This record gives sequence, C-alpha cells and structure tokens, in this order.
Amino acid sequence: MIDLHLIGIGTGNPDHLTAQAVRAMNSADLILLPRKGSAKSDLVDLRRTICAAVLTRAVRVVEFDLPVRDARGDYLGAVQDWHDAITQAWAGQIARHLPDGGRLALLVWGDPSLYDSSLRIADRLAERGLAIRVSVVPGITSLQALTAAHAIPLNRLGAPVVITTGRRLRDDGWPADGDSVAVMLDQGCAFDALDPAGIHIWWGAYLGMEHQLLIEGPLAVVRDRIAGLRAQERARHGWIMDIYLMRRGA
Amino acid sequence: MIDLHLIGIGTGNPDHLTAQAVRAMNSADLILLPRKGSAKSDLVDLRRTICAAVLTRAVRVVEFDLPVRDARGDYLGAVQDWHDAITQAWAGQIARHLPDGGRLALLVWGDPSLYDSSLRIADRLAERGLAIRVSVVPGITSLQALTAAHAIPLNRLGAPVVITTGRRLRDDGWPADGDSVAVMLDQGCAFDALDPAGIHIWWGAYLGMEHQLLIEGPLAVVRDRIAGLRAQERARHGWIMDIYLMRRGA
Repeated sequence: MIDLHLIGIGTGNPDHLTAQAVRAMNSADLILLPRKGSAKSDLVDLRRTICAAVLTRAVRVVEFDLPVRDARGDYLGAVQDWHDAITQAWAGQIARHLPDGGRLALLVWGDPSLYDSSLRIADRLAERGLAIRVSVVPGITSLQALTAAHAIPLNRLGAPVVITTGRRLRDDGWPADGDSVAVMLDQGCAFDALDPAGIHIWWGAYLGMEHQLLIEGPLAVVRDRIAGLRAQERARHGWIMDIYLMRRGA
Repeated sequence: MIDLHLIGIGTGNPDHLTAQAVRAMNSADLILLPRKGSAKSDLVDLRRTICAAVLTRAVRVVEFDLPVRDARGDYLGAVQDWHDAITQAWAGQIARHLPDGGRLALLVWGDPSLYDSSLRIADRLAERGLAIRVSVVPGITSLQALTAAHAIPLNRLGAPVVITTGRRLRDDGWPADGDSVAVMLDQGCAFDALDPAGIHIWWGAYLGMEHQLLIEGPLAVVRDRIAGLRAQERARHGWIMDIYLMRRGA
C-alpha cells in the first residue's frame, strides 16, 4: 500500500508552510521532487530549500524528471497525454524506491485542490491497480498570496467570485456570474481580450518570493505596464508565474 | 500609527497555522480576540488554545465582545450597520490598549480575503482618520479544508469555479459560469432550492476540528441526510459552520 501525501507548500515562501505540512514531510519514507527542466529550476531549488529547512530526520528525497507537455495541438488532449506520461513517471519512481509500499510525499505548489494535476495522477495510479490511499495537506494558494500582498478581499460583500483560467477568459470573455474574477494559468495577458472600461486589476507575479512583483490600477491604465513588466521579467528569470484579480464597477 | 496584522489562522486546526502566522503573532504588541457570544464560545476557546500553543513571548492578549448582527430586515443594510458597530468596538480597544500606536494582531478564521469583514473594518478605521497600515497573513480557508478532507480538486481540468454564498445560490440558482460551485455562509441547505438531478455534492462541517463531519454523494441521495445531520449537530454544539462543493454532470 502506498500512503500518498499531497502536501501544499504555498507559493515559494517557506514561511507559508503549515505545521501540518512540516509534520507530513517529516513522517514520509520518501519525498519525490519533480524537475521540470532548466527553465523552472528556481522552483526545484525552492523545494530543495524547503526540504533542507524543515526536515528534522533523514527522510529520503529523490528528484526525478517530469515529462514536458506538448504545447502543440488540442490543449485538453495534450494535457491528458501529459498526465499519462506523469503517471508513468510516478509509477516508475514508486516501483524503484518504494517497492514494498510506504509513505510517499509530494510537495505541491500552492494547494493540491486548485489547478494542480496531482490528485488526477493519483486517480490514474489507482486505476492502473496500484493500492494507494491519498491524503491532502492544504497549502496557501497564489490567489491568497495575491490578495494578502495587495491587502484586499477576494469577494465583494456577500457577492460571488469566479476563478478561471487565462484560456477561458480569452475564449469566453467576462464571466456572467461575478463582478470579481480571479485568473490563473494565464499564458500571457488574457485581459487584453476584454474591454477595459470600468475594470480594476490587482496583478502579481512570483508571489511570496523575494522578487515578488505587484501592480494595481484601472485595467485601461495599467495593462500595458503589466504586459511590459511580464515580458521583461519572464525573459530575465526564464519563467514567470502570475495571477490577477479583476473587479468591474470598482 | 497602528500596524495592523490580519492573520489567517485556518479553520480550527492549530496545525493549519503557517510559520508566517506564528511569527506575526509573536511580534505583536497586542492580540485582540473577539468574543461572539456564548453560542460560538468554542471558537474563542480555539483562538485561546492557538495563542497558548504558539506564543513564545509575553504578548498581551485582550478579549472583547463583538457586537451582534441584527438578523431582521435587509441583509446588506444590517451588515453595514454591524460593520459600523464592529469598527466602533475596534476603535475603543485600540484607544484603550494601544493609545500610542503599535503592532496590533487579529486572528482571522480561514483567510482574511474570503468572506471576512476585517479588511473592510480596517478601511473604516482609516476613513475615520486613524493612522493605520494593514498587512495580511494568508491562512488555510474552509474551502481548502473541505477539498483536502475529501481529497478532491476544486476545479475540473482547466475549468472555472464559482465561489458563492448560500443566499446567492438560493436567490439566483445555479451560476451560469461553472460546473463547479462552492458555497459558503449558508444559513441552511440552500441546495434545497436546486433541481438535484445530475449534481454531486461534497459537504463538510466543523472542518479541521475534532468533530469534523463529511458527507458526499449525489445531491438527490444525500441532501436529506445532510439537512438532518446539520440540524442535529447544530443543536448539539449551539453553532455550526459548514460549506460544500457541488459539480454538475459529475
């Protein structure tokens, strides 16, 4: 039996770790650290730093290469193929390092519930016949890091919030259900597809990290500045993770 | 100058506290603990327990009575009046205990960004002319505690999520924008207003606490069980906090 612990570690600030996360890391037999290629090596470094900072016993930590998603063709189809490949990679690491079962921990950026594939990969492992029990340790999401950094609420008083992706915002426009819309996984400035009139934006990149960036203002006023800074910092670091909240009639 | 730290403390499990929250609590000159009347005394007890568990220096902790919201009449109007009264209460405590300014910490259930009034109260204090600087420490929300307890993702793959209130669900029906809808602040089973066909629900109460309750299943099958358990446990504890995620076509 594999006792899989998906541990939310927040957004890169080791201080985001909860006591529950630290305990789960220390009680693991094996921690797997995925490497996503050189572009995002900062992120692997941060996971290494976190392990070094909080492990108080000799937990085995193994790094492995994560397959890369095919950026061509149909998006959802490519994601399914990618999840198959990740499942294969996890299965290989488990067979090699925990052949008799045990407690396996994976450190998940943010929280395992929000735009993360780990729970889906775990389902696939179970479907392949692996005896697996999944526990989730919640972590601070980039959305919370964003609202904390700007010191703003996510919702208007008693009002709904829509959390969506850059792709959906670009394809579907402003959601029908909310004056407050949070956008994640944006490959680049999907807000450009909107009429900016009356929209306020709170944007952040590298949230929780040393080089955190924040911009807020009327979308019509700040959107070019966001696009410019985003391109510049992406080139400088080799990667960027950003997120934003927009409100209409603010 | 008042240096106000709004510290998200998670949902009642002291293990939800982040390292950042513990540090912010320990660096405060004063921690104010609101008492909400005897009905929710468990919640004050939990805040006391958390203070006792994590404070490593002699930080002054002061309890004060929070005004009660008028349950009659117009909801948003009553909330505005209630926020005025809370602002008055905070101002009184600050004048009494931090007349020369300093670092004030408030422990916020969940995360200060999500359906919490503290940021709005802080704005009101600033509008009244108090010199105040606000910092937010993010915390684990009940929504994350819910998805973690059920080990489920919040969103479908690449799809949006609507977070809304029981009141809005009851008034407006199923949101247009999502197959996934999370409902908070429900005074009682707003899902009863929906046609349950094709809807799956993951429900939780007292999340993160010892007496956590979880039910999941097709809404048509489990809704009466949820309503019954909710009424029973509310009577037993004198209060209940519950939350749920629903998906259509699951």
